[in-house]
Amino acid sequence: MVNRKEALSLLFITWHLLFLTGCFSATNLNFPRLGMVRKNAGKSLEAKTQFDWTDFQIFNYTQTLDHFNYRPESYTTFQQRYVVNSRYWGGANSSSPIFVYTGDEAGLDIDVEAAGFFTDNAPRFKALLIYIEHRYYGTSVPFGSTEEAFQNSSTLGYFSSAQALADYAEIITYLKKNLSAENCPVIVAGGSYGGMLASWFRLKYPHIAYGALASSAPILYFEDIIPEDAYYSVVTRDFRESNESCYNTIRQSWFEIDKMAILSNGLTVLSQIFKTCSPLESSQELKGYLESLYSGAAQYDFPPQYPVDTICNGIDGAPPGKSILSRIFAGIVAFYGELDCYFGEKSQYQSQESFYTPEELDGWHWQVCSEMVIPIGRGSNDTMFQAQPFDLKSLTEACQAYYGVIPRPHWITTEYGGHNIKSVLQRFGSNIIFSNGLRDPYSSGGVLQNISDSIVAIYTAQGAHCLDILSASPNDPTWLVSQRNSEVEIIAGWIAQYNSNLTTSSGNQT
Amino acid sequence: MVNRKEALSLLFITWHLLFLTGCFSATNLNFPRLGMVRKNAGKSLEAKTQFDWTDFQIFNYTQTLDHFNYRPESYTTFQQRYVVNSRYWGGANSSSPIFVYTGDEAGLDIDVEAAGFFTDNAPRFKALLIYIEHRYYGTSVPFGSTEEAFQNSSTLGYFSSAQALADYAEIITYLKKNLSAENCPVIVAGGSYGGMLASWFRLKYPHIAYGALASSAPILYFEDIIPEDAYYSVVTRDFRESNESCYNTIRQSWFEIDKMAILSNGLTVLSQIFKTCSPLESSQELKGYLESLYSGAAQYDFPPQYPVDTICNGIDGAPPGKSILSRIFAGIVAFYGELDCYFGEKSQYQSQESFYTPEELDGWHWQVCSEMVIPIGRGSNDTMFQAQPFDLKSLTEACQAYYGVIPRPHWITTEYGGHNIKSVLQRFGSNIIFSNGLRDPYSSGGVLQNISDSIVAIYTAQGAHCLDILSASPNDPTWLVSQRNSEVEIIAGWIAQYNSNLTTSSGNQT
Repeated sequence: MVNRKEALSLLFITWHLLFLTGCFSATNLNFPRLGMVRKNAGKSLEAKTQFDWTDFQIFNYTQTLDHFNYRPESYTTFQQRYVVNSRYWGGANSSSPIFVYTGDEAGLDIDVEAAGFFTDNAPRFKALLIYIEHRYYGTSVPFGSTEEAFQNSSTLGYFSSAQALADYAEIITYLKKNLSAENCPVIVAGGSYGGMLASWFRLKYPHIAYGALASSAPILYFEDIIPEDAYYSVVTRDFRESNESCYNTIRQSWFEIDKMAILSNGLTVLSQIFKTCSPLESSQELKGYLESLYSGAAQYDFPPQYPVDTICNGIDGAPPGKSILSRIFAGIVAFYGELDCYFGEKSQYQSQESFYTPEELDGWHWQVCSEMVIPIGRGSNDTMFQAQPFDLKSLTEACQAYYGVIPRPHWITTEYGGHNIKSVLQRFGSNIIFSNGLRDPYSSGGVLQNISDSIVAIYTAQGAHCLDILSASPNDPTWLVSQRNSEVEIIAGWIAQYNSNLTTSSGNQT
Repeated sequence: MVNRKEALSLLFITWHLLFLTGCFSATNLNFPRLGMVRKNAGKSLEAKTQFDWTDFQIFNYTQTLDHFNYRPESYTTFQQRYVVNSRYWGGANSSSPIFVYTGDEAGLDIDVEAAGFFTDNAPRFKALLIYIEHRYYGTSVPFGSTEEAFQNSSTLGYFSSAQALADYAEIITYLKKNLSAENCPVIVAGGSYGGMLASWFRLKYPHIAYGALASSAPILYFEDIIPEDAYYSVVTRDFRESNESCYNTIRQSWFEIDKMAILSNGLTVLSQIFKTCSPLESSQELKGYLESLYSGAAQYDFPPQYPVDTICNGIDGAPPGKSILSRIFAGIVAFYGELDCYFGEKSQYQSQESFYTPEELDGWHWQVCSEMVIPIGRGSNDTMFQAQPFDLKSLTEACQAYYGVIPRPHWITTEYGGHNIKSVLQRFGSNIIFSNGLRDPYSSGGVLQNISDSIVAIYTAQGAHCLDILSASPNDPTWLVSQRNSEVEIIAGWIAQYNSNLTTSSGNQT
């Protein structure tokens, strides 16, 4: 049994599977275009300053705590936040669509702004936009407060994907009725974990959503569907494709770090070489930072900066004769710029984790500990990293110690499937777009082939995590413009088909 | 607030929506063919004497109490019973199908025998037969005993259709793996409530079941999808089609009963006319018995007896000049035969309710009180019965008083849909047979039109509740033989398609 602190350490540092979903973490990776929205966001939507919230209205829905259980406690309610933008809506009579953003592992504060695909395309579709916050994130927290809700597994127990999908089902059903919009087609959309939810929602609630756009949704990264090293294999490929020598330098660097670390003053020297904001306490700390940096760069390898290239240019651009460790540091400087110090709490730019609020991190860690058991690992020779196999036993120990919960690693595939997805869905289901960018390591767990005429895969070789659902920019490369256009055309086709059915059918059973 | 006894009375007597699902209640309606199996069944499968259990093996699966919740209590387990017949199975290597019976609101004891469609067709398909008992029925009861499990809404709260479907998902997934039968197509089948579960299972778990046979599944009898008087309208039509004068006699009889009942010795006279086993305490008691008799006769209007005709022949065959009440009694005698007395606890043949064990009745009543809110009612002039509109308020009061639970009348349509089913499923889902017999009043809530090429409705004008999934008999009418043949051919087509896909595809994502 590990203690609580060790458990935390295991969860937050050693395993990189924990902070690596999320669409909009790139905001923190020094990309001016997305802006440091989080820093201004505070905890409430009202606090936002940079984004024009004029068109958005915030509401709360009185949500049932447990949809699948009839114990008295299950009837407890909480206020679930959702945001509505009706500026562009054609209205219920026009059968204009309703786009529903299926909230992910973060409060709505940032998503509403960051998921620009919605607002960009609302005018064309005359669409009503609805963003629903996922339970236990943002302000949509049961039991009155985050402190109460996150107290232990008795209060956290209601925090599951199936409950979240049922939340969305209830809110959408309520809103359609309330707006007399029963005839308006609903298209759900989301990215990363939110993209999984969007695709699962279309599959489980076809009577509520007519189609789904699932951006960068690694719905196949469960159990043994894909090899566990898929994630880090893509990170490796990204760096290797950027530059073979960069890849080789990184690959060798871990041994250089280990070699230095075992010397008596090794950690001090490493702290100096890497200008760490506080002295390193272990070589693992440094390696964790670097793994996180490389993974983040690959996952959010967005134009126009392309952080993988930025890092590799730094590494390869260091003067000849420089040591491997100096080259690695040059990569960091190329990425972050010249700073007083790097890494750690005092750093100007922190790791991806710090992008999330502590509550959001805690929320996602709970989800990983209960059902979102994404088995990311690495073998000895398959990536540019050192081996680190996925270890369910350690995860289980840590989750028990930290949350008092035992992971159910088989549940997601039991509830949502994933194995043999083409056979299963080629004659079942319809109207799902699985979009991916192949530079995103999570694309390895995405659907990358057309399953049927209307369950399709749209991916770009150069794209990365959730890129397609971010706001369009005049400088976007043509392949990205083209990907978004394809998605828009497909969705327009669904809506046309829906409305054509509507006019030719009548009666209760039709 | 009504008290517990009043609540019980409301639930059991006044509303006839409570005992009217169930496939095999007809066993108690004096049909020798099905036999009085229940009487011999006792509480355990081993106790059966009439049915040859040689080919069936009984197992238990250690089932999770709550699939959608991660509270410590959710991890509690219970033993869920399932029965396997592998006599005809072609084996895992042959890709022979697995037929799974999705248990309904009764213990497995009777279903395994009564659902003869399975055993009848297993040899042709070389099918493995699996029957899974529904949680909280039979021996598949959590908390160690029925007494504990049914104690209050805290222990009953885990008793829901979504949990039952997830139970089936877990057991089937486990068995396929355990038998190395991952490549064998699973076809789920069930009748009435079990038929709803079969169709919902195919819709929610397409990765586990490749097709579903949903016999007499009134999945549209929820919320406002169909008129609330649909059930009793069909009962009325059945009697009217049997004989217009029979229908008229029944229609007038309620007023005759009321007229008599208000006399000072009226109940005594009524008790004498109807030879009740104990003196009537109210006219409603008598009317309840009669409604139950007529409804049951319509629902189970099976060949060769056709109980509706039997009753009507009795009514119409009474000597000219006989009073309406005497004619009604003659109908009862025609149905039950000459007995010492009729109705009530001392009667040789009791109402449908007595077919079920008290635990099963209690279980179904809980389900009605929580989510299976089937709004059966009647207006003033639409049926041969007196008006009795569906009354959600009274149901809610009774359910609160008796179980401490508040019904969720919108949940089933939110979770499983039902509105506009043709629009929703015409391009979504596949491989479902909705079978019905139109004499069954529940067929009014069934799917009676083809939705797509592979979601089809197969019904017979003369058939009744679950008739198609009962054992075949040499005397079966041709329309019944033909219905069953159609179902078998369609299922054979699914399996052929499945196996053809299997041989042309490979790889993890296919």
